[in-house]
Amino acid sequence: MAAQQDINIRPATPADSDVIIRLINELAKHIKQEDEVKMNADVLKKDCFGCKPLFYCIVAEQCQKDSSQLVGYALYFSIYSTWEGASLYLEDIYVTPAYRTRGIGKQLLKHVTQAALDMGCSRLQLSVLGWDKMTKDFYTRYGYVDLTEKQDWHVMRMQRKAMEEFVRNV
Amino acid sequence: MAAQQDINIRPATPADSDVIIRLINELAKHIKQEDEVKMNADVLKKDCFGCKPLFYCIVAEQCQKDSSQLVGYALYFSIYSTWEGASLYLEDIYVTPAYRTRGIGKQLLKHVTQAALDMGCSRLQLSVLGWDKMTKDFYTRYGYVDLTEKQDWHVMRMQRKAMEEFVRNV
Repeated sequence: MAAQQDINIRPATPADSDVIIRLINELAKHIKQEDEVKMNADVLKKDCFGCKPLFYCIVAEQCQKDSSQLVGYALYFSIYSTWEGASLYLEDIYVTPAYRTRGIGKQLLKHVTQAALDMGCSRLQLSVLGWDKMTKDFYTRYGYVDLTEKQDWHVMRMQRKAMEEFVRNV
Repeated sequence: MAAQQDINIRPATPADSDVIIRLINELAKHIKQEDEVKMNADVLKKDCFGCKPLFYCIVAEQCQKDSSQLVGYALYFSIYSTWEGASLYLEDIYVTPAYRTRGIGKQLLKHVTQAALDMGCSRLQLSVLGWDKMTKDFYTRYGYVDLTEKQDWHVMRMQRKAMEEFVRNV
């Protein structure tokens, strides 16, 4: 289904930061990780619109006669593969529940995918929670392959505290 | 064990590109993915040392009286977490077999971890193959947590051909 005509996909601006933070917290709650969010609008503003942007962000906006509201966002950034070169990582796509099943997520994914193609990327990569079947099916439907199932890739992470301890002890 | 005194860890230079490509191919062979490498020295040079660098690369060099040779490398880049902000991704650490068990990999990891701390990163992230126990144990020993096991995170990927097909059909 195509996105409704009153939905506009556009690059985020600093003025969107507060609403994007609200949507990030909604997403975190949806995947049961609300306690892990330490982000706020000031950090988001600096990191996206400062002199050295760390990511790209687009938003889905519902436009009405005299007003508009953000109903979704996508956040992505460049990564690199030593096998295939420049690639893109999709950190989040999120659409607020009342606006789902209208094709807005698909339109956000289309914009990110087009950006990846325009940047000459070989891969578009992301992570999903295995139990979040709705999200996993969304991406699988459009051509994503689960490399954890197919090749046994595991995601590993060191948090800042462990990083500090490691460099202190080596 | 500390790295041997004749091993120097330093930023890569364009002149290292051919040897880094050889080491990338050695690593791909080690994890049985040699058919997937499409990278060459010219692309690596442009992407690391061009006007818009896509990643950072450091090398481990064995220094002798009148010569030196590269025996390992680490390649990493900035990523972003909507939960915790600026983070670093470690794409590869590789040490050629004849130079293993001397602490060179640990020194490369220390340099990358220090870079992550200096950049104010909350997380240092990477992917390993579940069956590659040697590599997984290496990272676990120094404080990495397997988020695929702990939280069921799966790596998903869309290749360029599927990306082109998706944007054509939406």
